[in-house]
Amino acid sequence: MTENDKSSQPKVEQDVVNPWEVQSSSDKGVDYDKLIERFGSSKIDDAVLARFEKIVTARGKKVHPFLKRGIFFSHRQLDEILTLYEQNKPFYLYTGRGPSSQAMHLGHLIPFVMTQYLQETFDVPLVIQLTDDEKFLWKDLTLEECESLSWENTKDIIACGFNPEKTFIFSDLNYIGSSKEFYWNMKRIEKCVTFNQVKGIFGFGDSDCIGKISFPAIQAAPSFSSSFPHIFNGRKDIACLIPCAIDQDPYFRMTRDVAPRLHYRKPALLHSVFFPALQGAQTKMSASDPNTSIFLTDTAAQIKKKINKYAYSGGRDTIEEHRQYGGNCDVDVSFQYLEFFLEDDEELEQIRKDYSSGKMLTGELKQRLIKVLQDLVALHQERRAKVDKAVIDQFTRLDRYKCCEDFPPLPQSSGKKKKKGDKKQLSESVQEMKVGDCANGKS
Amino acid sequence: MTENDKSSQPKVEQDVVNPWEVQSSSDKGVDYDKLIERFGSSKIDDAVLARFEKIVTARGKKVHPFLKRGIFFSHRQLDEILTLYEQNKPFYLYTGRGPSSQAMHLGHLIPFVMTQYLQETFDVPLVIQLTDDEKFLWKDLTLEECESLSWENTKDIIACGFNPEKTFIFSDLNYIGSSKEFYWNMKRIEKCVTFNQVKGIFGFGDSDCIGKISFPAIQAAPSFSSSFPHIFNGRKDIACLIPCAIDQDPYFRMTRDVAPRLHYRKPALLHSVFFPALQGAQTKMSASDPNTSIFLTDTAAQIKKKINKYAYSGGRDTIEEHRQYGGNCDVDVSFQYLEFFLEDDEELEQIRKDYSSGKMLTGELKQRLIKVLQDLVALHQERRAKVDKAVIDQFTRLDRYKCCEDFPPLPQSSGKKKKKGDKKQLSESVQEMKVGDCANGKS
Repeated sequence: MTENDKSSQPKVEQDVVNPWEVQSSSDKGVDYDKLIERFGSSKIDDAVLARFEKIVTARGKKVHPFLKRGIFFSHRQLDEILTLYEQNKPFYLYTGRGPSSQAMHLGHLIPFVMTQYLQETFDVPLVIQLTDDEKFLWKDLTLEECESLSWENTKDIIACGFNPEKTFIFSDLNYIGSSKEFYWNMKRIEKCVTFNQVKGIFGFGDSDCIGKISFPAIQAAPSFSSSFPHIFNGRKDIACLIPCAIDQDPYFRMTRDVAPRLHYRKPALLHSVFFPALQGAQTKMSASDPNTSIFLTDTAAQIKKKINKYAYSGGRDTIEEHRQYGGNCDVDVSFQYLEFFLEDDEELEQIRKDYSSGKMLTGELKQRLIKVLQDLVALHQERRAKVDKAVIDQFTRLDRYKCCEDFPPLPQSSGKKKKKGDKKQLSESVQEMKVGDCANGKS
Repeated sequence: MTENDKSSQPKVEQDVVNPWEVQSSSDKGVDYDKLIERFGSSKIDDAVLARFEKIVTARGKKVHPFLKRGIFFSHRQLDEILTLYEQNKPFYLYTGRGPSSQAMHLGHLIPFVMTQYLQETFDVPLVIQLTDDEKFLWKDLTLEECESLSWENTKDIIACGFNPEKTFIFSDLNYIGSSKEFYWNMKRIEKCVTFNQVKGIFGFGDSDCIGKISFPAIQAAPSFSSSFPHIFNGRKDIACLIPCAIDQDPYFRMTRDVAPRLHYRKPALLHSVFFPALQGAQTKMSASDPNTSIFLTDTAAQIKKKINKYAYSGGRDTIEEHRQYGGNCDVDVSFQYLEFFLEDDEELEQIRKDYSSGKMLTGELKQRLIKVLQDLVALHQERRAKVDKAVIDQFTRLDRYKCCEDFPPLPQSSGKKKKKGDKKQLSESVQEMKVGDCANGKS
């Protein structure tokens, strides 16, 4: 478990970051550089960004603000994904969500906004997992309740603008009971991971239920293309890139440890920072406390009220002091939200200068943010209202994929799936992806 | 965990009996009376047998030798199953097998022979689980190898003579990935059982893989009728009787502890003794050591050779001593095999007398056994040879059940499944089974 060794060293007063808790003692929030060191991931530094920009601009695309502004700040093996893209070789995206409440909040949007950008930029397939079984195991909810949350959340996810031709949204409680291949991958992963390992990675204890203990295999399984035969035609060699908040990294450190033993590729990762609570960056926005969150169901008036009332300010106590000393953008939640959602780089920089110098007051800053969020949420609500049964079917049904054309079988690994008439496709696939690309990947 | 308390008390030099190991220090084999006490089950005593006999003979059926001879010696809640039968209320049978080798041996037949008798006698549905996923987790085998063992074993099971109209044989690696309801029950069970509990019941440790740790939920799930909606029409209130060797009891103690919390019925159980190895009753017949076993694929000559060469004898060292003192049926493996497979009660009793008195020699006893086993295995092979794809389909396909007729939905519990035109069936179902029959069962 080389990748986990680093994180198992006990440190004093370090930030708490795991899939169930994020807590920092600093009002600037989690120390992400230290987190990169602890988790053993790589920083998205200027060199990585420059290569990314060069590759996408060569094909007439732009770099997303989330990358330029360090909102996605860490990665694993992103370079290999970029190389595949340069070589016109296939890969796919995987992200997900634990549907814990009927209303999603702004923070939940971050991975989906990024993933939508990546899908549009690279034109690749995407799978989105709703871990309603996880919510069942962790919360006092019935399976029926968890499944219904999945479907509500599906509408919000679809409203983010994914390509219906290339996006498969599934809930564990629905898909696993209909996919032998997914279940088989769960078993393969479960065989490779001991209780000791999940204890170390996730902090599980003896009094945790056996469902929780084996759950990490379920979040790991979508990292492997063979879990989706209806999309990838049984191919197990398609590379995977996972955009997610960094608290989900423990699942994928485990996945990357397991992958070579199963002769699968290690998934690549793109990690985001947390979306801060209204009250400040010590913790992330949480759906379970409505006063810390702007929901995608909030009205314009609710957004205005919440920002004005709760958004932690980096401003001074009096207007005079503020004009003299300026505000502190590093702790100001309104400014941080603008970093996420104000697209115009120049305007954002101007606001930073004006607020820091004291030229811009907290009320003015909040007013700008309120407008940005009101527009964003209104647009989301408008898109979501258009998501009906027919649209949901487009994203969730298994029978609408024509995967044989997109992912012709490899000559060796999928010999059993070979059908008559596939000979032409076979020879093409050899050119497209060599068997040697498969698995045994370096970290 | 009241039912488990008894078994968790440490005792010195007690027999080892768990799903993975059976070992006794006595050459008479496991002390089954002590096991009943440890496991907290009930003995099938004269009173139980008398009631069983009265009920089945009233309908023109016979009591199976396995019951009369104490081969099925222990039970849980058999009385309630008999009451259901008396009242013409439905129940079903559930048994299974972990397909560890291509060839099944005589010992593997015991639960299937008993289950076939029970199905024929009571005319009830039966589900047979092949835990090929368990074998994958415990053995150095691939999923593909385990699945193929399942299909080979399916042929042997079908050859036992089950009713194709009422028997569903499934392998975990096939069925779970096609049954949402089964998967949901797995999750419900997994939520109710902690690592501490499976540690206590099954002896799992921190270095066991998470697949093993959560596996007990998979063997528990078929105990609940809602795991088979294609048979029971979504009904979750159909009682279940599980005939099995007593080493499988830990799974069902756990299941019975969980059931009331899920508002399911506790399954009833019928426990058999172990089928002794050729070398003696200290351990059970094991497929992994071919010299301890008579396989269902053995030729007449192999059977003759193995019995003559390996079957542990209770006879004396010389013919003279044997004639004078007689043989010991309590340790003689050949005699014990005849107790399993010689149907004629009178002949068996005569052999016991003659061998114990010394009138019958070991060679003669073995000769009789060889004939019995050769006939049995030849008949099995003949039946197995007739099992082709079409026959397997009859037992394994989901789409051939007409469950709506046999199991009309209950008015309350399965309201969502109600369809137009079911009104007449509904009123009948109220008569057939009261909602109050459901769950919260006494131990």
